Parts: sequence; C-alpha cells; structure tokens
Amino acid sequence: MGLTLGELADRIGGELQGDPGCVITGVATLQHAGPGSISFLANTSYRKYLPQTAASAVITRPEFAAECPTATIVSTNPYVAYARAAALIVPPAPLRQGRDPSASIGKDCCIDASAWIGPNCIIGDNVHIGAGTQLAGGCFIGRDSRVGNGGYLHANVVICDGVRIGERVIIHPGAVIGSDGFGLANENGQWLKVPQLGGVRIGNDVEIGANTSIDRGALDDTVLEDGVKLDNQIQVAHNVHIGAHTAIAGCVGISGSARIGRHCMIGGGAGIVGHLEIGDHVTVTGMTMVTRSITGPGVYSSGVPAQENSEWNRNYARFRKLDQLARRLQALERRLGAKD
Amino acid sequence: MGLTLGELADRIGGELQGDPGCVITGVATLQHAGPGSISFLANTSYRKYLPQTAASAVITRPEFAAECPTATIVSTNPYVAYARAAALIVPPAPLRQGRDPSASIGKDCCIDASAWIGPNCIIGDNVHIGAGTQLAGGCFIGRDSRVGNGGYLHANVVICDGVRIGERVIIHPGAVIGSDGFGLANENGQWLKVPQLGGVRIGNDVEIGANTSIDRGALDDTVLEDGVKLDNQIQVAHNVHIGAHTAIAGCVGISGSARIGRHCMIGGGAGIVGHLEIGDHVTVTGMTMVTRSITGPGVYSSGVPAQENSEWNRNYARFRKLDQLARRLQALERRLGAKD
Amino acid sequence: MGLTLGELADRIGGELQGDPGCVITGVATLQHAGPGSISFLANTSYRKYLPQTAASAVITRPEFAAECPTATIVSTNPYVAYARAAALIVPPAPLRQGRDPSASIGKDCCIDASAWIGPNCIIGDNVHIGAGTQLAGGCFIGRDSRVGNGGYLHANVVICDGVRIGERVIIHPGAVIGSDGFGLANENGQWLKVPQLGGVRIGNDVEIGANTSIDRGALDDTVLEDGVKLDNQIQVAHNVHIGAHTAIAGCVGISGSARIGRHCMIGGGAGIVGHLEIGDHVTVTGMTMVTRSITGPGVYSSGVPAQENSEWNRNYARFRKLDQLARRLQALERRLGAKD
Repeated sequence: MGLTLGELADRIGGELQGDPGCVITGVATLQHAGPGSISFLANTSYRKYLPQTAASAVITRPEFAAECPTATIVSTNPYVAYARAAALIVPPAPLRQGRDPSASIGKDCCIDASAWIGPNCIIGDNVHIGAGTQLAGGCFIGRDSRVGNGGYLHANVVICDGVRIGERVIIHPGAVIGSDGFGLANENGQWLKVPQLGGVRIGNDVEIGANTSIDRGALDDTVLEDGVKLDNQIQVAHNVHIGAHTAIAGCVGISGSARIGRHCMIGGGAGIVGHLEIGDHVTVTGMTMVTRSITGPGVYSSGVPAQENSEWNRNYARFRKLDQLARRLQALERRLGAKD
Repeated sequence: MGLTLGELADRIGGELQGDPGCVITGVATLQHAGPGSISFLANTSYRKYLPQTAASAVITRPEFAAECPTATIVSTNPYVAYARAAALIVPPAPLRQGRDPSASIGKDCCIDASAWIGPNCIIGDNVHIGAGTQLAGGCFIGRDSRVGNGGYLHANVVICDGVRIGERVIIHPGAVIGSDGFGLANENGQWLKVPQLGGVRIGNDVEIGANTSIDRGALDDTVLEDGVKLDNQIQVAHNVHIGAHTAIAGCVGISGSARIGRHCMIGGGAGIVGHLEIGDHVTVTGMTMVTRSITGPGVYSSGVPAQENSEWNRNYARFRKLDQLARRLQALERRLGAKD
Repeated sequence: MGLTLGELADRIGGELQGDPGCVITGVATLQHAGPGSISFLANTSYRKYLPQTAASAVITRPEFAAECPTATIVSTNPYVAYARAAALIVPPAPLRQGRDPSASIGKDCCIDASAWIGPNCIIGDNVHIGAGTQLAGGCFIGRDSRVGNGGYLHANVVICDGVRIGERVIIHPGAVIGSDGFGLANENGQWLKVPQLGGVRIGNDVEIGANTSIDRGALDDTVLEDGVKLDNQIQVAHNVHIGAHTAIAGCVGISGSARIGRHCMIGGGAGIVGHLEIGDHVTVTGMTMVTRSITGPGVYSSGVPAQENSEWNRNYARFRKLDQLARRLQALERRLGAKD
C-alpha cells in the first residue's frame, strides 16, 4: 500500500525536501535500500553509505541533508522520526482475539474479550488479562496476576503468582517474572530457604527482553517503573527498584535491593551490587561493576578494554604487585625529599 | 489464622520479650509493618527503621533488643529465626495431586500418586517422579530421568534425558538441566560435535534459579551435591562438580570440569575457568575471574569497582602501559642504587 | 552390539596397536573405564590417569602410545578420533516421525513426512520443516520460518517469525531465536520502540546452547554463518554477523551490529561492543571486553585473574590513583633528568 513522502513527513513531523507525491512502500538500510524504500542516517558511522544510497528518501539531520542524493525528511531527531515512519510503513501483524482451545484457564479469571490467549497457555486462578493483550503461546500466568491492556507476551513467557503488570508491556520469549529471590539464611553451614513473599510491580510501557529474569520481592515488591526497557539475559534480583525510563542492556546483573534511578542507562554486562542506590540520569558503561551508591548524574566505568594478550599479561603481572610498586616509588620520593 | 508470639518464639527457638498472647498474622519489613505483623532486623543497615516500626514484634539479635519499641523475639541468628517464622505464618500454597489431562506421559513411568503433573507437561519414557513432587506446567522431563520426593518444578523447566534429581529440589522457571555440554573437536578448522554421554546428578535440598542451565557430562556426570543453591542465569558446564552447601549468585559462569568445594560462596557475575579446583570454604567476590586452583579457605577477588568515567579513563590509559611504567621506576631505582 | 577395535580404527582413521578382534561396547574416561570400554587422552592434564586405566583401548597421540598399558588407537588428533568413535559406539536415540496430536500446526505449512513434531509444539502459518528434523516438545515456530533438514530442536525452543535456519542445526532447550532487538530511540527522555523488521539467518551445522538468545535484525538480518557453535546463556544482539566456524563459549554478550570473523574463538563471559569488526582467526580470552575493532589474527585479553582479597584490595586502591602515581614518577624522572 505505502504512503506518500508528503503524508509521511506530516505524520512523523519532519521537513520534506523532495517530491511529496513519491510513494514509499518499505524501509531499509542506506546500503541495501532500493527504489520505494526510505532509509535513515542517525549514527554518523554509517554516513559513508549516504552518497551511494538507492533509497527513494532518507530521514536525517539538517547537517547531512545536503549530502543526500535523494529526497530527504529533515529531522533534529532522525532516529525517532525513523521509528515512527517504520511503524507506519510496516504495520505490525494484526491482533488476534479469543482463546485457542488448547489454553488452560483457571477459575475466577477476568480475560478481556479482545485479548488473545494462544495455544498451550496456562492461566492460573483469579488472573486479569486486559483489552487487546496477546499471549503468543506456551505462556504461563500464575494465580492472582494481572496483565494490563495492550500487552504482548511472546512465546513461553512465565509470569509467576501475584505479579502486577501495567499497560502496553512487551515481554519477549523465555522471560521469567516473579520467580523466588535468592533468599537464604545460613544455619551452621547449611542454607535455609527464606520464603519470598513479596510480588513484582511493572509499570506501563515497559519492555523486557528474551530469557531475562525478574525475581519477586522477599517482603516488599520488586518494582519497575513506567517506561523501563530491559534487554535480553538480564537478572533482576528481589526488591530491586528501577526508576522510570531507565534502559538496561543485555547480560546485566542487579543484586537484591539495589535502587536505580530514573533515566539511567546501564551498559551490557554490568553488575550492580545489592543494597545501594544509583541516582537519576546515571550512565554505567559496559561491564562495569557498581559497588557503592552513586548520587549525582554522571558516567561511571570499570570495564577493562582488551589488549593484545602478551601485552596484557605483562601489564597484569605488574598490576598484581602494584601496591609494592607504589611503595617503591614512595621510597624514592622520600629519599629525594619529594612531596608525597 | 495466625500464631501467638508465645507459640512462635517456642517454634522458632527464640527468647520472647513481650506479651506471649499477642497474635501475629503477617510478616513485613520494619518500615512497612503494621499491627499484627512481625518483622526482623538482621542486616544492620536497616537498623535505622527499628525505632519507628509499627510491627507488633521484631526478631532481632540480643544487642538490638533494647532499641526495639515493641515485643521482641531475641535470637543469635535472627535471619534464620525469621525464615522459620515466615514459613509458619504464611504457609505455601497447598500441594496438588494427580495429573492435568493435557499432560503427556511416556511409557513405563513411575509417578507417585501424590505428585502433581500440571498442564502441558511432557514426560518421557521410564521417568520416576517422587511423592508430593509438583510440576507446575509446561515442564519437559526426558526419558530415564528421576525427580525425588518433595520437589517443585516451576513452569517451563526442562530436564533432559537421564538426569537424577534428589529430594526436596526446587527448580525455578525456564531452568534447563542436562543439555549437551559444549564439546567440540577441531578438525582442519571445522568443529566436530563430541557426543555428550554423561548425565547430571543433583543431590537433596538443592535450589536452582530461573533460566539457569546445567549441562550434562561428556562421559562422567555433572554433579551438584546436597544443599547447593544456584541463583538465576547461571551457566554450569559439563562435568562441573559443586560441593555440598555451596551457594552461587546470579550470572556466574563455570567452565567444564571445574571442581568447586563445599560451603563456598561465589559472587554474582563471577567466572570460573575449567579444569581447576576450588577448595572448601572459599568465597569468590562478585565479577571475579578464577583462573587457577585455590586450595585453602579464603576470599578471592578481581572484580573492578566503578569510578567516574574520566578518572577511570586516565587510570586505564596508564594501566595499558603499566609494564613500561614499572620499568621506568626500575631504571630510576638502579640509577639511584636503590634495592629492587 | 559393539564394534571390534579393528573396525573402529578403520572407521575413525587411526593406527591400531593391539588386538583387532577386541570388542568395544562403551566409552569412558581413563579413570572410570573398565573392560570393553575405549577411552582417550587428548588434554595432557589427564595423562596421570593413563598408566592405571582399565580401559580395553585408548585413543591417543603417537607420543603417549608407549605409556598406554592397553591397546591403542594412535591418531594425530585423538579428540576428533574419539568424537567419531563415541558416535559409532553410542548411537543417538532413534529419530521419530510424524506429529504428536497435541501439536498445533498453522496454515500453509510444509512439514516433511520424516520430521517429528513433538507434544505441545506450536507451529505458525507458512512454516517449513525439513526432512528428519526433530522438535522435542513445547517448541514454538513463528510464521514464515524455516528449519532445514536434519535439525534437532530440543524442548521449549522458541523460533520467532521469519527466521531461516539451515541444515543439521541443533538448538538446545530454552534458546530463543528472532526476538526483537533492543532498538530504542530517545525522545525527550522517553524511549520509543524502533520496529525490528529484519530476520535471522542461520547457516548449516550450527549449534546453539541452552537459554541463548539471538535477536532479529533491525532492518537487515542477524547472521550466523555455517558451522558456528554457540554455548549456553549467550546474547547475540540485532544485526550481529558471526563468521563461519567461530565458537563462542557461555555467557558472552555481543552488542548490536558487531561483526565477528571466521574461525574465531571467544572465551566465556566476554563482552563485545557494538558496531565494530573482529577479523578472522581471532581468539578473545575469557571475560575480556572488546571495545575496538581487531583486524588481524591474534589473541586478545582483558579478563582480570583473581587474587587473595586483601592483596587485591591493596592493588586496586593503587589502581584508583594510577594516573597520579604515573605523574609522580614523571616528576621524579624530570628532576633527575631522565628521559621520559
């Protein structure tokens, strides 16, 4: 079907330079686009592909518009403009309604007629599923849980008992929400399980990646505020609190009762120790370990970039004796009367 | 229904200071407890909430009893005492028996009549499921596997063929036990799969977290001894052996044939190289990489705490040339006749 | 059952030293083998078990043959020879055909009559499943996806829409292929989802570990070339490209649009930053963070080995001020007229 460039520019809020009647039927990268496709340039490392692109139009920033060999939709935030354009040009698969006969539904459930409960889903007692929410298949929802309107649970998602999920929440395959926290009390060298009696509360417009796990609270709830975005393979321990609009990349581990502020960005593979607080607008770069509270906004790091192995080994061998090396330097300074 | 403080103190083994007839109906944190609830103070960082708590009683150590504004159950191990109290006051959901008609059961299985096989479970041939064991739903148990009495397999757990699991083992959603190890032989640059013919043996009172994976052995078995506790998102490779009562936090990766002793604690995100041995009572702190065997008890670390990014970058830039820096110091020392 | 040593040596291509009529019925490690079993010695750290082995035969390198107390199959690549021998002596479970009645199959599917669709599998519309391919149970295959001949999808594998998988691909339980990439555009502090419109293309002879996740591309495809081997708990972000015959150990995270060459080996827990390129034949050791492109072959590291904790703390305290320490050294050098 497609949209004209004129319509598109109107609806995504950009300034069109080019033929408003040109029909766009697809989206593609600069290097693979052909006629009828629109592309975008947001990350400057792809600028090299701009001059040769065969796209019919490109969404980009004002400063790159001149380099563009074709029609342009100019936007100060071309990635946002592209996201909107893509959603218009390639609409998602139509929603389904009702329930597959193989689904197993508990007692006292309140499932909106416009929701879709796919094959082999298992719904416990007293579950609420909101309007339009889609459960793809093989999902498990424990008793007393609630999924708001407009949600999408992909295949094999597990929601344990007593989990509250807001509106328009997307959960990718294999994610687990509400599993028991790792609560153990040590008695004479053996571990006693501490009952995990809290729940999980997830706000609106949250997205949770594939095979990510979010534990229920020990007593109070684990909380993800509105607009939190979690990538794949993330571990969120019991009683973690993640502030609104914080985005966390893959393979991050967050220990129990850590409190992360709003509008934070946590890089892939980072680890956050428990019982600490990270303020708003904090960025933690990849593979960093946060061991103390961080109050202000700012960027924090400890991920160690790779070196050629033999060079690394030499440096690391010195690191193993760094304290001694520092003392040797101190000794020299003392001898020479330098200030410490 | 609730218990009186007198009963509770008796059953959890603490000394009551206060009214033994006071009825307790719930558990809560110090800061959120109300009348009728019991709370606890184990981690001193929560001591600040003690004076204002509205709990009817608090379980705590002798030294904090005087500060407590309400009845107290005094215990030398308040976290253990609390764990027992919580299990008494908030009993788990009642066990189910029988099998959901949607479950698929293989030939020659021995499933105790008191076990529960939930919806859409798939049980292979010659499987044994012990008394009272619960399979929540969507679980897969491969042929020739055995789950002992009193177990709990949460939703979508996968147990592959020939896995032996002891008594009272809890496995959280999405965990995989007995997948093939990463056994590959390189022939002229291409990888040939090495058949993974061992099994997995899991002792009694083991708990395994959500989305954790434990590979089967290549020839001998992968082994978790009694009382091992694994958090979420852990990778246990083929032929790993984990000693009794060792606890491992989330996101840890353990490479093939590593042998971990008893009563160890492995912090979140740690990595353990293969074919090495860690003795009993070893603690490995978060995000540490263990590359050599560790014999004695002790604490081992290499996780690097975060710094403000620009400071980190300056330090890291020096680290990249640390060997050279050490040589420069040595040169100065030589010139000045200092002892190396 | 069993094979004679003579047959075995012929079929795996090794030189037999010993009785060709000896019948082999099992495989075992050097330390646990008994009569009738064949064992192997490839990793020299197990050489200590060779003199006492009770195996009927051992596959090993020429230089260890003399030490072997029993029959030997001599091979320059004993691990490869062993892999072939094990596959011959312990053949895999027989393949199944057809479909379990509980499987849910979409419209316009092309499922080969020799494939097996196990219990509770969910197959979307327009799916192709090749000859002999096995879906163990609880698997989900989204619409328009294709799994080639001779594949094996273990329990609870999720393949999302529009994923192309080649021949003889093995996918372990809980793996997710084709979930949405972590594509987010920031607009005034809130995250807007960027539609993920690419697919995933997986070549022939690929193996993917338990609970590993591979995201679909944002526009172009995420690609795994032939012979790629992924261990468990790995995260492959959108538009990653992994070259043929590259092997990646557990818990690795690969960020978006990273391009990894052929014949690479990536150690466990490593992290690879997005939008960079790693050439062919590169080895990255465990827990290393790759932050820049690596052109040539070679070995790269930044994983920090563990030290005893108090020693580590002393060294780390110095590291936190390493830049200052380097400046102090510089100052001394200047004072003494040393060359910088």
